[in-house]
Amino acid sequence: MKPLGAPLPEDLGVLWERYKEAVRAGGNPQALYQEMVWPALLRKWREEPSVYPSPQPFAVSVHTLGTSPEATALAILGAGAGKVYVLHTAESARFLPRLREDTAKDLYPIEIGKSDVAAIYRAVKQLLEKHPDLPVALDLTSGTKAMSAGLAAAGFFFQRFFPRVRVVYVDNEDYDPELRRPRAGTERLVILPNPHEALAEVDALFAKELYGKGEFGKAAQYFGGMVGKTGDQAYALYKALAEMYRAWRALDPKEAVRQGKALLGKLSENAWLNHPLNGNRRALEAQVALLERVERFLDSQDFGERAGVYGLAQTLLRLSQEVGEGQPVLAALYAYRALELLLQERLALLGRRAEAPGLSPEEEGALREELARILQIEPKEVRVGAKLGLLDLLAFLRLKGDPVVGAVPLPELQGLAGVLKARNEALLIHGFRVPTGKQVGQLQGLARRLLQDLEARSGVQGVSLDPVPLGF
Amino acid sequence: MKPLGAPLPEDLGVLWERYKEAVRAGGNPQALYQEMVWPALLRKWREEPSVYPSPQPFAVSVHTLGTSPEATALAILGAGAGKVYVLHTAESARFLPRLREDTAKDLYPIEIGKSDVAAIYRAVKQLLEKHPDLPVALDLTSGTKAMSAGLAAAGFFFQRFFPRVRVVYVDNEDYDPELRRPRAGTERLVILPNPHEALAEVDALFAKELYGKGEFGKAAQYFGGMVGKTGDQAYALYKALAEMYRAWRALDPKEAVRQGKALLGKLSENAWLNHPLNGNRRALEAQVALLERVERFLDSQDFGERAGVYGLAQTLLRLSQEVGEGQPVLAALYAYRALELLLQERLALLGRRAEAPGLSPEEEGALREELARILQIEPKEVRVGAKLGLLDLLAFLRLKGDPVVGAVPLPELQGLAGVLKARNEALLIHGFRVPTGKQVGQLQGLARRLLQDLEARSGVQGVSLDPVPLGF
Repeated sequence: MKPLGAPLPEDLGVLWERYKEAVRAGGNPQALYQEMVWPALLRKWREEPSVYPSPQPFAVSVHTLGTSPEATALAILGAGAGKVYVLHTAESARFLPRLREDTAKDLYPIEIGKSDVAAIYRAVKQLLEKHPDLPVALDLTSGTKAMSAGLAAAGFFFQRFFPRVRVVYVDNEDYDPELRRPRAGTERLVILPNPHEALAEVDALFAKELYGKGEFGKAAQYFGGMVGKTGDQAYALYKALAEMYRAWRALDPKEAVRQGKALLGKLSENAWLNHPLNGNRRALEAQVALLERVERFLDSQDFGERAGVYGLAQTLLRLSQEVGEGQPVLAALYAYRALELLLQERLALLGRRAEAPGLSPEEEGALREELARILQIEPKEVRVGAKLGLLDLLAFLRLKGDPVVGAVPLPELQGLAGVLKARNEALLIHGFRVPTGKQVGQLQGLARRLLQDLEARSGVQGVSLDPVPLGF
Repeated sequence: MKPLGAPLPEDLGVLWERYKEAVRAGGNPQALYQEMVWPALLRKWREEPSVYPSPQPFAVSVHTLGTSPEATALAILGAGAGKVYVLHTAESARFLPRLREDTAKDLYPIEIGKSDVAAIYRAVKQLLEKHPDLPVALDLTSGTKAMSAGLAAAGFFFQRFFPRVRVVYVDNEDYDPELRRPRAGTERLVILPNPHEALAEVDALFAKELYGKGEFGKAAQYFGGMVGKTGDQAYALYKALAEMYRAWRALDPKEAVRQGKALLGKLSENAWLNHPLNGNRRALEAQVALLERVERFLDSQDFGERAGVYGLAQTLLRLSQEVGEGQPVLAALYAYRALELLLQERLALLGRRAEAPGLSPEEEGALREELARILQIEPKEVRVGAKLGLLDLLAFLRLKGDPVVGAVPLPELQGLAGVLKARNEALLIHGFRVPTGKQVGQLQGLARRLLQDLEARSGVQGVSLDPVPLGF
């Protein structure tokens, strides 16, 4: 309902020209604006504010207030919130009554220093915590650049925790440089996009960060999302790469090979010859080849597949180191399995298998004595089971003159006996023990020595398990 | 070296008053400013720019350019970078030659739309990627609010990936509202703090996010850092809480109890009676009590410590579910151990132990037959070992009339036989198998049924393993 006699919005252009003439004629620009232009503009915004892309049902709005209260009045009307906070300075407090009158809203003033960005951040955080689930508009139209920048930065940042926050401002499509004012009638309240969401490419940075931290599953999700957001299939290749490492770390070589081969296939296509990952093609090929050997070993369970044993043991040892101090139970488990695998491989060199060693009575007697030596007990106290456990394997290999195991000094083996015997008593096997970090370190150290020897025999020297660089 | 005859910076106050009088006398404010004030101001900044808190060695600076080229000139001089990019609009391009002349620097112009925030984000990202390791100043002094807000938001956001970026702007300590200009001589280039770093409280939001995701170790780090940053010891209590859950999830009940008891002790002190965590005190106390029982069980290995067995099995089952589909090897391992523990507890009710069951010849014969029934093979093909494995435990308990195991239909047990027998062949035990998600689900299902029965007998009904809410 427009009151009779009020100028129509269409008349704003006419009003502006009249106002400009009056200023040129030597009138006071501020006073003339208030008198000739502002009432009509305000009326228009009270009736139908201009909001881009479309009006939103904001429940709360927060505004910085500097020396242009008019623009803030428009922002308040444009946001249309029931609860309105105004961050003002000592100086701009004088505009508050005027702002109340223009907007016919009750305002909650909050005073801050005009250059105190941290105070803005804090004020915004407190207001958002007060209304955590409501749609909030943060308006940066007025105030110093520091205030506006602070509000924008805080707003976009806090969207992470308060997803219904929007940063808005009153833009104008035509600025009159002569009057140093936006031309009346061309203003609109703009809802700004978050830099993160506006730029799908930004996800690449997040994905890269996750990839660098070894969080391959999450990195793959980001890369996958980017294919859809940007339409750029180049990200699908990065997704395959991250999936390959995810499956590798989850001890799923079959899936890792599938992803790796698909990736190498793509990288050979004409369209992707310039893909950054082709810069590390040789490293990638070596990793996929190693994974294939691991897969083949797991399928065949043939310890003659040395490269596969090597790749698997190396993976287990790396996982043991990665879970590290925070997870001693898991770290021990990976180290135990790496060590056992490496010892089983050496046993296989003698044509024996741990689960059915087929010991002759002489061998069993000698093993009993060797174990007694390591455990520092009497041979008659030693129990030899039907399958060879970790300690049995070490003792048997020593007995048979294995050069690498034989090179470990007896006192060192005696020091390891406790932790090796304890394997079956580990919390995740059948028992209740939690190994210490030192014990895990001992296991890793022994496994590393065996791994080195196997590497030399496996023909796969120099394949790193490190993820290849992304190239961006 | 000040050229002879040039006005000294101290004279800027005098110049300003003279300029103001000339404007009042009807002169053109812009022309008079250029003539009377600007040359002296520019000279001052060329010689000794004013930078708060102190001048930084920026290698690159990026500036938005609107209709106030003077402030941008000061920002360029204040940043002092060798490489200067100017984001200008179609309209503000006309100020570029003037800016080059004022700063005596070669500028790289980049045209963008004045309201196109996404374009600003993109431009900033590209420039940062071009100079990833250099100190870069992003100056938001000039340009529309959209441009400035975009630059600030992008700058603070990208600091995460490019830590040497700073957001800066030219502030002034005195604005002359009559002239709608900063009073000359009071300008300074301000280096803005990042909202994240300026507000230690923000870390609480990150910590809460991590806590909610179950990343307790990282959450504890954040909380610990906040004690130092804010001096607020309340965060030390949150740190203890997060450490408790971290240790719990890492199967280290001793450490979890230590942290939990320290936390409860603090919460009882006068100073912390109003700490938000006291709002969940009962839930916390129940969890710490359960952890103490788990610790006692692991120390005593006495299956009569039912609450401890219950707490441990519940923890293992939860870990199995949490590592879930992405880590089938680990998920199976946790589920196997939970199941074994629950079966061992039932065996203990019969006064027997899995590692030394002491079977009579009759029992062994009956067990063989029971196993044959489950495995659907001939009794003579069955091997019974010296210790009872998972499948042996199930068969033996059935044999002895265990009500819960007895209630599992035989076909279901027959379906489970494969996965139970495969335990020792699991990749992280002694073998090479990777269980399927379906198999893991079967294990979890059976364990859950046994857990339910144990809960009823353990007297600890209703203790949730869920982390308590943080209360902020």
